[in-house]
Amino acid sequence: MSVQEFPKSGSSILVTRALSRDGLTDLFISGEGIIEAAGEGIGKEYRSVAEFVLPGDSCIVLPGLVNTHTHAAMSLLRGYADDMPLDAWLNTRIWPLEAHLEPSDVYWGTRLACLEMIRTGTTAFNDMYFFMDQAARAVGDAGLRAVLSYGFIDLFDAGRREKEIRETERFVSGVRKLRNPKVRAAVGPHAVYTVSEESLSWLAGYAAEEGIPIHVHLSETEKEVLDAEKTLGMRPPLLLDKCGILTPRTVAAHCCWLSKEECDLLARRGVHASHNPVSNMKLAVNRAMPYPWLRDAGVNVALGTDGCASNNTLDLFREMKAAALLQKFSHNSQTLLPAGEALHMGTAAGARALGIGNGTLAPGEPADVILIDRQAICNVPLHTLDSNLVYACSGGSVRTVICGGRVLMLDRFVPGQDEVLKEAAAAAESLVRRSGMS
Amino acid sequence: MSVQEFPKSGSSILVTRALSRDGLTDLFISGEGIIEAAGEGIGKEYRSVAEFVLPGDSCIVLPGLVNTHTHAAMSLLRGYADDMPLDAWLNTRIWPLEAHLEPSDVYWGTRLACLEMIRTGTTAFNDMYFFMDQAARAVGDAGLRAVLSYGFIDLFDAGRREKEIRETERFVSGVRKLRNPKVRAAVGPHAVYTVSEESLSWLAGYAAEEGIPIHVHLSETEKEVLDAEKTLGMRPPLLLDKCGILTPRTVAAHCCWLSKEECDLLARRGVHASHNPVSNMKLAVNRAMPYPWLRDAGVNVALGTDGCASNNTLDLFREMKAAALLQKFSHNSQTLLPAGEALHMGTAAGARALGIGNGTLAPGEPADVILIDRQAICNVPLHTLDSNLVYACSGGSVRTVICGGRVLMLDRFVPGQDEVLKEAAAAAESLVRRSGMS
Repeated sequence: MSVQEFPKSGSSILVTRALSRDGLTDLFISGEGIIEAAGEGIGKEYRSVAEFVLPGDSCIVLPGLVNTHTHAAMSLLRGYADDMPLDAWLNTRIWPLEAHLEPSDVYWGTRLACLEMIRTGTTAFNDMYFFMDQAARAVGDAGLRAVLSYGFIDLFDAGRREKEIRETERFVSGVRKLRNPKVRAAVGPHAVYTVSEESLSWLAGYAAEEGIPIHVHLSETEKEVLDAEKTLGMRPPLLLDKCGILTPRTVAAHCCWLSKEECDLLARRGVHASHNPVSNMKLAVNRAMPYPWLRDAGVNVALGTDGCASNNTLDLFREMKAAALLQKFSHNSQTLLPAGEALHMGTAAGARALGIGNGTLAPGEPADVILIDRQAICNVPLHTLDSNLVYACSGGSVRTVICGGRVLMLDRFVPGQDEVLKEAAAAAESLVRRSGMS
Repeated sequence: MSVQEFPKSGSSILVTRALSRDGLTDLFISGEGIIEAAGEGIGKEYRSVAEFVLPGDSCIVLPGLVNTHTHAAMSLLRGYADDMPLDAWLNTRIWPLEAHLEPSDVYWGTRLACLEMIRTGTTAFNDMYFFMDQAARAVGDAGLRAVLSYGFIDLFDAGRREKEIRETERFVSGVRKLRNPKVRAAVGPHAVYTVSEESLSWLAGYAAEEGIPIHVHLSETEKEVLDAEKTLGMRPPLLLDKCGILTPRTVAAHCCWLSKEECDLLARRGVHASHNPVSNMKLAVNRAMPYPWLRDAGVNVALGTDGCASNNTLDLFREMKAAALLQKFSHNSQTLLPAGEALHMGTAAGARALGIGNGTLAPGEPADVILIDRQAICNVPLHTLDSNLVYACSGGSVRTVICGGRVLMLDRFVPGQDEVLKEAAAAAESLVRRSGMS
């Protein structure tokens, strides 16, 4: 496999005879990166005009997976610190190391994350971190789709608030100037315990004016909820709502400690919930997201991996399984969150949460498409497609990835992969050395 | 890669400069399949005598993983039925389909399982099913190491008991005649709710006479415990102990609903516990194995995947992560079951449970060795080896597998793989067709 065999960016693509969740299908993707036609046999009509043909006979085809909560550049911290009490983990390991991050670290960390996402079938993600100009550049170079937010943290300090406001505005206008239709800016109020009411209200107003998304952590731990009640006089969802943060453009990550009434509130406001089961288990938050309440209230529930420091992978196939397992176990039900629902969370619900179409393979949708190996062991035998994809496969069974019509991985070859691995490893090593820690 | 490049069975092998958990190492494996020498630089001494050299510069080396509880042939049922209430799942789907199994199905199902284990770094497993002659043949053909037991179920019926006793004796003597040092027979009392006291006592006595292992399900569900108290007047561990089943040759699978006193009893008897976190979550058993009690009591705790109908993969890398996550989440502790302990459970504890050495890379140990790609994304960056292996890698990062000195996979090539996939898929399809179900 060589770069020469890759279709040029902007080529139209015909995928033939791949197995979708609705049976055999052909897909024709226009040079503008939109699914123009889909269905069994439509390939005949497009074969003469397609500039590139991808035979899908040995493949399963799915919409690309969507990761609705991550901190991509933290891939540089993968395995740096684990199995520690939360406070010591943050205070003695993660934050001191992050204090030494430089812009180029965020570039290579985000490139590493993008590479992992491409190799495991994720075509779009919702990111919150800092040095986000570098993240935007990395996403553009990788060819993925992303909603990016600068993590706004004022720690209730007026001076810091002004700086964060300026940085948010600067980042949003910077992304706009990139004119990359696959990269959008959002605002990123970190959480109620790190952002003042004044700032939350400003962010809500600014996001509404600009018509951009909001990405926020919500009710991840019991401590967050109890502290908010004590020091702010209000539980986190009510505080966010008071400040206008809960909107149909909002993705709220974690949502573990929501009450039933708060699930109803999220539904009324049209907020999207991002379930992060692996991170929640690893950090022992002591309560699984109340998926049955959110589902019954009608909230759109999608999936996220969280950052690599608390997961430590961005493989959404594994996250779909973790969600199905954790919900069954926590709510004592063998039937809760069946495979089909987990797949919906990983695809259509994620796309809807990030405002990038319906996350299906229908004509008119953005051509974010992945091909999975039908001969991989996880697909043998193939009694039930959804079950194999969610319970047996990992991202390693993905062979080809198309994002917005551009082929990013072809038969497991990603152009430029070696450089990303080398530079990211070097950046991580240099970061630890500079920090004086080990 | 072709079969010709594989070292012949019985060749001595030198692995050079691989990264082990203790630093860089060379390994020399004798033609008899034993690790003869290990350590940095020992390669120089053996380079001239080694019949095959495996450069390990880009690899991490580990002892092969050990799966201490599975029903390998159930790989044919992967994805056949999921997300159902336990009773309906067993009564309307799994058991009716199993009723149509033929010996050749168990052969190809076990071959499929062995292929998946090889491709994900497992070199030995503890199996319980039926048509076990076929399982033994499949394990022999695949080249893996296994402890195999016929699943003894008398349903408290004297006539059935006699048949099960004869089948157990027949299987044990049959395995002995194979003279395959990597395949051993065990007895397999299924569980206290399917096997009478008389049979349990006979099995304990027979296993002691023959000096062979015992493989049993124990306290998987609350119902099992409550029913035993009600109908047998005793909780499962006490009943097994009364019948002599709890021995240092015994592997007890699941152990979710043990009391603290029962954990102490297992420790006193030297029983090995097999933790099956994915199966327990998927089947919503409503309680995680009490790992802290078992660990504190001194019980050797290993890992198992259970069969593919309730997991639906045999990837022990993913099971190590699931164990670390479930224990942290269930016991509300970020520090419980750290990566190093999970790796120990997946390697050394498993080897000890199955009586196949210490599960280390020390001289004198059976040469069950796996090489993992150091350039795989899960190992970039490489701050902490144990963390990457447990929390980031899946079995797909394993490149080369050696079992008892025989190379079973070389740089992800497994001879005969295509035939296994084809025959297993055909067997599964034919099984469903014969059953008249879908």
